[in-house]
Amino acid sequence: MNKKNLRLSTSMCNVNPFRVMMVMDRAAELEAAGKKVVHMEVGEPDFSSAFPIINAAKQALEEGRTQYTSASGISELRESISCHYADKYRLKVDPSRIFITPGASGGLILLANMLVSPNDGILTTDPAYPCVRNLIQMSSAEPQLIPVEMDQNFQPNVKQIQNHKRENTTGIWLASPNNPTGTIIERDRLIEIARWARDENLNFVVDEIYHGLKYVNDLPSVLEIDARAFVVSSFSKYFGMTGWRLGWIVVPEEYIPMANTLAQNLFISAPSIAQHAALACFTAEAEEIFEERRLEFARRKNFLSNELRNLGFKIPTSIQGALYIYADISNFSQNSELFCRDLLNQNQVAITPGADFGEYKAEKFVRFAFTTSMADIELGLERLKMAL
Amino acid sequence: MNKKNLRLSTSMCNVNPFRVMMVMDRAAELEAAGKKVVHMEVGEPDFSSAFPIINAAKQALEEGRTQYTSASGISELRESISCHYADKYRLKVDPSRIFITPGASGGLILLANMLVSPNDGILTTDPAYPCVRNLIQMSSAEPQLIPVEMDQNFQPNVKQIQNHKRENTTGIWLASPNNPTGTIIERDRLIEIARWARDENLNFVVDEIYHGLKYVNDLPSVLEIDARAFVVSSFSKYFGMTGWRLGWIVVPEEYIPMANTLAQNLFISAPSIAQHAALACFTAEAEEIFEERRLEFARRKNFLSNELRNLGFKIPTSIQGALYIYADISNFSQNSELFCRDLLNQNQVAITPGADFGEYKAEKFVRFAFTTSMADIELGLERLKMAL
Repeated sequence: MNKKNLRLSTSMCNVNPFRVMMVMDRAAELEAAGKKVVHMEVGEPDFSSAFPIINAAKQALEEGRTQYTSASGISELRESISCHYADKYRLKVDPSRIFITPGASGGLILLANMLVSPNDGILTTDPAYPCVRNLIQMSSAEPQLIPVEMDQNFQPNVKQIQNHKRENTTGIWLASPNNPTGTIIERDRLIEIARWARDENLNFVVDEIYHGLKYVNDLPSVLEIDARAFVVSSFSKYFGMTGWRLGWIVVPEEYIPMANTLAQNLFISAPSIAQHAALACFTAEAEEIFEERRLEFARRKNFLSNELRNLGFKIPTSIQGALYIYADISNFSQNSELFCRDLLNQNQVAITPGADFGEYKAEKFVRFAFTTSMADIELGLERLKMAL
Repeated sequence: MNKKNLRLSTSMCNVNPFRVMMVMDRAAELEAAGKKVVHMEVGEPDFSSAFPIINAAKQALEEGRTQYTSASGISELRESISCHYADKYRLKVDPSRIFITPGASGGLILLANMLVSPNDGILTTDPAYPCVRNLIQMSSAEPQLIPVEMDQNFQPNVKQIQNHKRENTTGIWLASPNNPTGTIIERDRLIEIARWARDENLNFVVDEIYHGLKYVNDLPSVLEIDARAFVVSSFSKYFGMTGWRLGWIVVPEEYIPMANTLAQNLFISAPSIAQHAALACFTAEAEEIFEERRLEFARRKNFLSNELRNLGFKIPTSIQGALYIYADISNFSQNSELFCRDLLNQNQVAITPGADFGEYKAEKFVRFAFTTSMADIELGLERLKMAL
């Protein structure tokens, strides 16, 4: 296919498909041929949504809550999220600053449209969640990538950020916890970065999609530090509501009218049944389930990280959040795409090559997701031993 | 609030909130004060989703179908839509060309990102659905508005379109049936426009969101005429699934890989429960309900259009589809925003001013939606008589 014969947008040329999708397609082929595949490529918790959420959805269906909601979301849910910030973060976030979005994806799109102009430069890390870089390019802006190393926890410091700032820079977008690295921006660092962004008059956006899935005591929200920061969050990960497509953003007070206008134009409203179902996330019985699951993820994370270290993978000292271990494979291979392909084809273990998350040292890294059962992780590790 | 102190995207400045939202807010205030408001402003069918859809959703919840689906949507639903084109349009559309999107909104965003570059010109009509013009502006492109008159059924002819084409024009986006006018592009005209767009090497996008809601025999899909056209469609209107946020697009074969990449980046997947529920739309029992509702809309449309004509509103000879009558109020007022405000405040009838749909003669037009009961339409007309 020759893209040149098609009238495509200019930004389209820079956006690549996710390798993980090809991994998943190939895994499905192997399964169709009767093979047992160990799935450590999937960025989605392996639990179905918790029963209180399912029951709340059924109730909402009974009540016929199938119409559009207001563009910013139902007020009960915005208030519940506001209470969640008060309970878990001792933080006052007015419900009017909270917008319910169709997935965190919808939130990222809204913020990109609100904050990013063509030819702007936006600072972000390499590696990082690829959609962010791609959305910046779809806004015809320039992702200004800050390469980050494992020994700095894959999170940038102010000096590094400063070095990558250019005249056209208008914002900085970071993630804590980060996908694919499972590392967070610690409080002191977050304070420094927020202060710097403010001094430089840059928009500071923090992807907090994996908040809740934490394996350390202190996982600060940027909102605790800077009420002028923008936050993207999600019901997908900690709350286990991936397929419902529900997330939220928090914007500074003076951006409320613009966020409202964009929500109307970009998605009319988030899914209504999902919004009513999500109210159940903030009940004691649901929280108990989420916490059990978090502890199960922590067990898997501990086991997998120990075993990977023993096998000779280099991984961060501490996996602090999210569902991933970003592992340096240079003891085994200098080509992570090939490494992943062989591992899948020859040993039926599916993992994601670093190229999905950036360019910096991507050929040396792979992402393991601990989104499958302990039994499957054990099987995957056995197969990995055989492969190496 | 001074937007100049905020770091906003340049395109943000051109995007305005919908007046209809302000109308709805004011109507809610009046209702809170104990007034009975007649709602003829709402662009949403007043029926809850049909019971086969609700039941299918409950079934999907029972089965725990709460995870992401593939970015293009579940294959059963893509196949059902393909069959729908075969059954209703005698048209062969391969399921691989069909992408399930989070609402038609998601489809419009995908197409804008795929097809529109900064500084492109995109031809579209004035009046039209405001989101389209706004999305074009969010892509930093230029909406090239073709003013259309009632006596041409508010749809453009090729000569007019040609006259508005500029050097930077890369596409033409039309809607049939059109919101707010309730008029369609008839087959001969659609053939001419498609041929012209092809000769000029322009992307031709047709919003067919209101297909199904038709009050004439022949409502052609552009796909019957041109396999290289792009279609946006929806489960919201005819299928009555507004709050579920589910739509689809059809793209030419060679755009499939790019549409897939964008779907992954822009929304990961459409809501999963909604997709499974939507399968029930293509059952005989659901179709019977949809057709009953369509006939009810036709009855309301006939009654409302006759009465509006009798009262002295100028409206199109035939309302051919959708849920709206776009009425010329120049016998009563030269200021449709004021007309709407007074009608709401003094007589508690909510309708939408023309300014929501463009600039051309906007001050002379209002939109009536027949998305409320016949009893309320009668009450609204009584109040209207008093007001005039």
